[in-house]
Amino acid sequence: MAERDVKLDIDRRKRLGFDEAILCAGKSCEHLVAILEQLEGSRLLLTRIDAETLENLPPKLSRQIDYEPLSRTGFFGTVEAPTGKAEIAVITAGTSDVSVSREASRTLSYYGVPCLEIADVGVAGLWRLMERIEEIKRHRIVIVVAGLDAALPSVVGGLVPGLVIAVPTSTGYGAARGGETALFSSLVSCAPGVVVVNIDNGYGAACAALRALWCGVSGE
Amino acid sequence: MAERDVKLDIDRRKRLGFDEAILCAGKSCEHLVAILEQLEGSRLLLTRIDAETLENLPPKLSRQIDYEPLSRTGFFGTVEAPTGKAEIAVITAGTSDVSVSREASRTLSYYGVPCLEIADVGVAGLWRLMERIEEIKRHRIVIVVAGLDAALPSVVGGLVPGLVIAVPTSTGYGAARGGETALFSSLVSCAPGVVVVNIDNGYGAACAALRALWCGVSGE
Amino acid sequence: MAERDVKLDIDRRKRLGFDEAILCAGKSCEHLVAILEQLEGSRLLLTRIDAETLENLPPKLSRQIDYEPLSRTGFFGTVEAPTGKAEIAVITAGTSDVSVSREASRTLSYYGVPCLEIADVGVAGLWRLMERIEEIKRHRIVIVVAGLDAALPSVVGGLVPGLVIAVPTSTGYGAARGGETALFSSLVSCAPGVVVVNIDNGYGAACAALRALWCGVSGE
Amino acid sequence: MAERDVKLDIDRRKRLGFDEAILCAGKSCEHLVAILEQLEGSRLLLTRIDAETLENLPPKLSRQIDYEPLSRTGFFGTVEAPTGKAEIAVITAGTSDVSVSREASRTLSYYGVPCLEIADVGVAGLWRLMERIEEIKRHRIVIVVAGLDAALPSVVGGLVPGLVIAVPTSTGYGAARGGETALFSSLVSCAPGVVVVNIDNGYGAACAALRALWCGVSGE
Amino acid sequence: MAERDVKLDIDRRKRLGFDEAILCAGKSCEHLVAILEQLEGSRLLLTRIDAETLENLPPKLSRQIDYEPLSRTGFFGTVEAPTGKAEIAVITAGTSDVSVSREASRTLSYYGVPCLEIADVGVAGLWRLMERIEEIKRHRIVIVVAGLDAALPSVVGGLVPGLVIAVPTSTGYGAARGGETALFSSLVSCAPGVVVVNIDNGYGAACAALRALWCGVSGE
Amino acid sequence: MAERDVKLDIDRRKRLGFDEAILCAGKSCEHLVAILEQLEGSRLLLTRIDAETLENLPPKLSRQIDYEPLSRTGFFGTVEAPTGKAEIAVITAGTSDVSVSREASRTLSYYGVPCLEIADVGVAGLWRLMERIEEIKRHRIVIVVAGLDAALPSVVGGLVPGLVIAVPTSTGYGAARGGETALFSSLVSCAPGVVVVNIDNGYGAACAALRALWCGVSGE
Amino acid sequence: MAERDVKLDIDRRKRLGFDEAILCAGKSCEHLVAILEQLEGSRLLLTRIDAETLENLPPKLSRQIDYEPLSRTGFFGTVEAPTGKAEIAVITAGTSDVSVSREASRTLSYYGVPCLEIADVGVAGLWRLMERIEEIKRHRIVIVVAGLDAALPSVVGGLVPGLVIAVPTSTGYGAARGGETALFSSLVSCAPGVVVVNIDNGYGAACAALRALWCGVSGE
Amino acid sequence: MAERDVKLDIDRRKRLGFDEAILCAGKSCEHLVAILEQLEGSRLLLTRIDAETLENLPPKLSRQIDYEPLSRTGFFGTVEAPTGKAEIAVITAGTSDVSVSREASRTLSYYGVPCLEIADVGVAGLWRLMERIEEIKRHRIVIVVAGLDAALPSVVGGLVPGLVIAVPTSTGYGAARGGETALFSSLVSCAPGVVVVNIDNGYGAACAALRALWCGVSGE
Repeated sequence: MAERDVKLDIDRRKRLGFDEAILCAGKSCEHLVAILEQLEGSRLLLTRIDAETLENLPPKLSRQIDYEPLSRTGFFGTVEAPTGKAEIAVITAGTSDVSVSREASRTLSYYGVPCLEIADVGVAGLWRLMERIEEIKRHRIVIVVAGLDAALPSVVGGLVPGLVIAVPTSTGYGAARGGETALFSSLVSCAPGVVVVNIDNGYGAACAALRALWCGVSGE
Repeated sequence: MAERDVKLDIDRRKRLGFDEAILCAGKSCEHLVAILEQLEGSRLLLTRIDAETLENLPPKLSRQIDYEPLSRTGFFGTVEAPTGKAEIAVITAGTSDVSVSREASRTLSYYGVPCLEIADVGVAGLWRLMERIEEIKRHRIVIVVAGLDAALPSVVGGLVPGLVIAVPTSTGYGAARGGETALFSSLVSCAPGVVVVNIDNGYGAACAALRALWCGVSGE
Repeated sequence: MAERDVKLDIDRRKRLGFDEAILCAGKSCEHLVAILEQLEGSRLLLTRIDAETLENLPPKLSRQIDYEPLSRTGFFGTVEAPTGKAEIAVITAGTSDVSVSREASRTLSYYGVPCLEIADVGVAGLWRLMERIEEIKRHRIVIVVAGLDAALPSVVGGLVPGLVIAVPTSTGYGAARGGETALFSSLVSCAPGVVVVNIDNGYGAACAALRALWCGVSGE
Repeated sequence: MAERDVKLDIDRRKRLGFDEAILCAGKSCEHLVAILEQLEGSRLLLTRIDAETLENLPPKLSRQIDYEPLSRTGFFGTVEAPTGKAEIAVITAGTSDVSVSREASRTLSYYGVPCLEIADVGVAGLWRLMERIEEIKRHRIVIVVAGLDAALPSVVGGLVPGLVIAVPTSTGYGAARGGETALFSSLVSCAPGVVVVNIDNGYGAACAALRALWCGVSGE
Repeated sequence: MAERDVKLDIDRRKRLGFDEAILCAGKSCEHLVAILEQLEGSRLLLTRIDAETLENLPPKLSRQIDYEPLSRTGFFGTVEAPTGKAEIAVITAGTSDVSVSREASRTLSYYGVPCLEIADVGVAGLWRLMERIEEIKRHRIVIVVAGLDAALPSVVGGLVPGLVIAVPTSTGYGAARGGETALFSSLVSCAPGVVVVNIDNGYGAACAALRALWCGVSGE
Repeated sequence: MAERDVKLDIDRRKRLGFDEAILCAGKSCEHLVAILEQLEGSRLLLTRIDAETLENLPPKLSRQIDYEPLSRTGFFGTVEAPTGKAEIAVITAGTSDVSVSREASRTLSYYGVPCLEIADVGVAGLWRLMERIEEIKRHRIVIVVAGLDAALPSVVGGLVPGLVIAVPTSTGYGAARGGETALFSSLVSCAPGVVVVNIDNGYGAACAALRALWCGVSGE
Repeated sequence: MAERDVKLDIDRRKRLGFDEAILCAGKSCEHLVAILEQLEGSRLLLTRIDAETLENLPPKLSRQIDYEPLSRTGFFGTVEAPTGKAEIAVITAGTSDVSVSREASRTLSYYGVPCLEIADVGVAGLWRLMERIEEIKRHRIVIVVAGLDAALPSVVGGLVPGLVIAVPTSTGYGAARGGETALFSSLVSCAPGVVVVNIDNGYGAACAALRALWCGVSGE
Repeated sequence: MAERDVKLDIDRRKRLGFDEAILCAGKSCEHLVAILEQLEGSRLLLTRIDAETLENLPPKLSRQIDYEPLSRTGFFGTVEAPTGKAEIAVITAGTSDVSVSREASRTLSYYGVPCLEIADVGVAGLWRLMERIEEIKRHRIVIVVAGLDAALPSVVGGLVPGLVIAVPTSTGYGAARGGETALFSSLVSCAPGVVVVNIDNGYGAACAALRALWCGVSGE
């Protein structure tokens, strides 16, 4: 019965270069099965799929999924490892933000795009960022994952000439307001031209980076 | 006395490729004069400068400003007109959003970067967008300026493969909440990889486009 | 003891054409039993009743309930299947919104009113909507169920002349704000005359459709 | 120069039955002139146009506008007076809400649709509503304009079987929160099937009523 | 060790007429035990104590508690049943609000003050309120417990001359916003002189009623 | 034309003991004139009427108004001065709150009810309250007007056994949030049984006090 | 008549070391005159007094006020210039924040306490801060005034061992939300032990610095 | 794999005097193990570590942790007990706030700094505070932990000359808004110079106190 509830955007890769990814949170198990069965033989990126949901899938399907628990992402079908020189850096302010930055790097991997990952370079201990900044600046695109006050995108945005994509995270409590403070803070960054995606949306940041990367490449 | 309150980031162009722009709203006339005098002979982009403030500046300074009233932007010093093929499109949902999109296009002009401007292609009359979509898709970067429900970035993001930068605007009343609805709506766009800047921030969108453009160019 | 806490609006059908439906979430099991016992022999629509609550009811009562798990609705007593031509369409942007659209269609079914259900026609893949739009336009009333940026009601509202009832949903995270973004977005739709009900309120949308349908019919 | 910023949805009447109305607030005088000149010889509904803006228009244009100051609406071009039996009632809770209800009735008038207007039937003095309720119930559609606690839509929604469209208003101060309290209150009305439009949006309520009215008529 | 963390306001009855009541939610079991042991031989009102916490108390203490599960209140020590004529009415809009109204009536009982309890007189079915309104009006103080749009306090406040105390409740979902809509709605009631307590605060409403009752009595 | 927009609740005094008061803010001059003319020969309380509006009224009407500028209240028609012993105290935390407390005392005066007014007893200088607390405690009802952190109602509520009505005010800036902080703070007062009215609503507090006073008096 | 509305906390200096300062915004001219006349011969700090209010004071009073327009502060009576070594630094992120930092430095001056003022060291151009950081670190207390994303307090809090007091400012638009973003951002600073005062509250920051300074001094 | 996600700010003690503390909530077990193993032989403060997480650590690590359950803090490695005279007081309004105040006192203990702890001195029973106020005033720094209306910091701030650090807590329900009411209330305290940290942030308050204490001591 669930099948009539699912209509995948199978034309998306042709239009945008992306496959439709499946945000698993909020979908019933029946819906997920219907989606995976429609796409068998093809490949698919699954986001926000928790270990429990994975276990509830029929083994025939779950066995085809390459799962990474920290980011809760899965690759369904065959996905090749990234190769080549990284043009995208993914950096995080704190250890708690890594589940989000990993979602970004996994999304890039799904599309065969390599990236540099650096964790724990938050501005409270500025020396950690400064140690790596020259390396970071060599990348055309920098994804900056930060919660709390989201000071990192501003500092990076003031030092790096490339495209800076801020991903606010929901870490913290109280005035962190589930990530809204980091979100608003990123949006009013004092550094010019920092762009922002939704709270905890590592997937979206990676897609934006791919848009910029691909349009840059094809543009030449 | 005001001079000690002003310390421009004169090193910015070297680091980022941008000059520091001056957001005039919220600055006293004394501060603006101090800033302009520091930079005489050089050039500067002024944003959110209203006609009244302009008139209050000493003629010696105001006479050096090329002012555009709809966007409330001014070019201080000599700025060359853009040349070459446009790789950036700036489109708006409604007529009321044009003051913001013009801020974006003027910022691009300041840096000599041409763009295509299209107004009034909101989705309530979808045919207007569809008439122009092939033309829009030919651009590497699309800045989408939209208030109210900000449905336009989602529709564009689903049709265009390049980098899509949404600029929510404060048009509308009531549940438009001064642009917060458009902001949140853009952030949770159902199209993948749409990035967002602050409400009414045409300047920031242009800077982001320049970051993507320049890093793309230099990357080759 | 709980009985004194329950006083059903048994006069409602005479006044409005509706029975009082019971929103089960937030009601104690004792209260539900008291309500069902008062209405035995009659019929009743139960909304937001989860499988667990159902199991805790006395078998004598639960056995009289026709339950649909995705929408968490139950029909208590005898309900006839809908017949005739559908004048109402119920469409959803994404798969995650189907639990809400199903609540709407089930409510219509309870009153013997047929409808067309179409899922997954969100605007990120506009071709899916365009494939079906002529069919949708043939209905007098269109219920549009959409979360996130709720761009679908605007696009539909710009293409369909009938009454468009938007149901924002709580799908998504972060800036989706539990459905408030979709709610506000629907309220400031750029399409004229779109009306809105509460977040996730498929039941309310169906009631509104019935009001419009019945008043239209009797008006002739 | 402004002309390129304006692209009217001239196809709207064919698609939806409506003309595009112009929300004048937030538009520059140049933009208004560009719009009116494009439509000369035709007709147009102007909303939120204040007396001052009207005076700033060229006399050639302003002279063609039939202006109503309380609702701040204008009819540009020739508009016939409504005729026939009213099937829509527009009622308000308080005197301060009349500017909004008048916007609704003026919009109906623009389309030649008559309505019954009743003011000041708020529930704090319930007898005022009860005196008129039988008359109100005879209408297929009731637009209920109410600010503050918006208790009126609930009471009306519990007494009237037709379509009830609530228009929350921004009257009041403090916890009225510029109309958000009335908005949320209307959305969670304890009466089933009440639909809601944006705060102060008398125009939108009228459009919704026209959608329901016209789809009802053509449906037979 | 926990004892040093507890310092009861043992002087309160002398100053205000009340005992200090203990809000059990958010207190550790050790703290509750420390409090009850300090007051053994005396009496105490416990609010928001769930069945699970009760079971975790030492039997020596829990055995002295008269528990009512719907309101989650407990009387510790000996409490006499109320006697005399009721001067306070406690009414609720819906069945889901009864847990809150019961907290109010139990608090009154703790102080030996009788009240009239009426449930399910919400305005969507106005006849239910009208059937009882003459009886309600005979009370000096009316506590009105209502969630969602909180239309009931306004209607009652317009019909009853006595002190009307609104208790907004957290029933509902979406735009009900955990009771904030009912709270704001009550605060901007169109009926004059309605007073409000915190969301779900049946205890506070009862205390306010006792203040009014006692000051009225002693005032003569 | 405006007359049809006005329907006063002329039955209110019989039902509740109050006349309908007119909140002048947000009403057009025409509406005010229509109201006053309907009530000539009778009497009426006007609130939030600024000096400018007063001057715009026809002299025949304005001359019948006893105006107090700080509270912006007017008595239309003949109002007798209060007599007898004060049973109500109206106290304020700061000088900026006096415009609100004066609205309360003026409302009481309109109904011939005397009160004690004390200003500037905020808790930052606790000695000022302590000097007067014995005097305050002798009143059956205490209206406490306080903005900012609204600490005063809690301290008073812990010292005074009578009915305590908190009126939060919109004084302050930033985190004062236009009075919402004071409002929420009053609602969660740590003192039991404090009741609250809308921000800056001195009129409502007075009406509540009158309800309590009159029901107490008639109750004996 | 206004005099009874004013009761200064004349005992404050003895208790806390401070005089009561007068926040002039929101006070009527009559109230200000009443306050100044009560304190003639003594001295007083006036905050948020705009030039217009100053001009409306009787010359006898205004002449005794030493006014600074950027901070809108006035010293009434004789105030000595600060002497000695600065132990407090007041730094700002941007030029627009100087009106707030000046309020802090003026408050310190009123109490004879010297401070170092540095403007425009926001993190978007990190080199500006780094040039001065050794100088800043030599101060026991650093007041950091920053709006927008308030990244500066975090960076400073990670580099400076002394007490760091963040003053969020209301500069910016859109997602800056009148300073709330800077406020929340400061509260969740990733640097440990940063403390925060209200938005734009330069006065409060200075008072806190004085508390820390004086208690440190007297503590030895 | 997790190790690369962790980069401790090992230089912090040298810069600021603090070790980096680890907020355990939101960190995976793997990350915690990686952190503890990096620091073995050294010492570390763990905050927000619940008993369950503790049990999941390898015994080799958990055995080195001195755990306090009410505050959920742990000392990893050897920590000496505080000695000397207390210059800091930590006081709480209610028993429910003790988990937060204990986090503050435990943090001070970790650094060998003694403090005076007093619980349950909320202003609803003012005598409890007044009994202890002379003792409290003898401390250079007072940390005031209070939820709900947070009236205590204002009263204390008006009586105590030292540095007053308010810690709002998330106790309460409804209008307490998870501690935001206490937060905003503290920020607009009517007492001058009260500073504020994040909701429930006992750790941050202690760090601020240490900054003030150490800079005061070294300043002499």
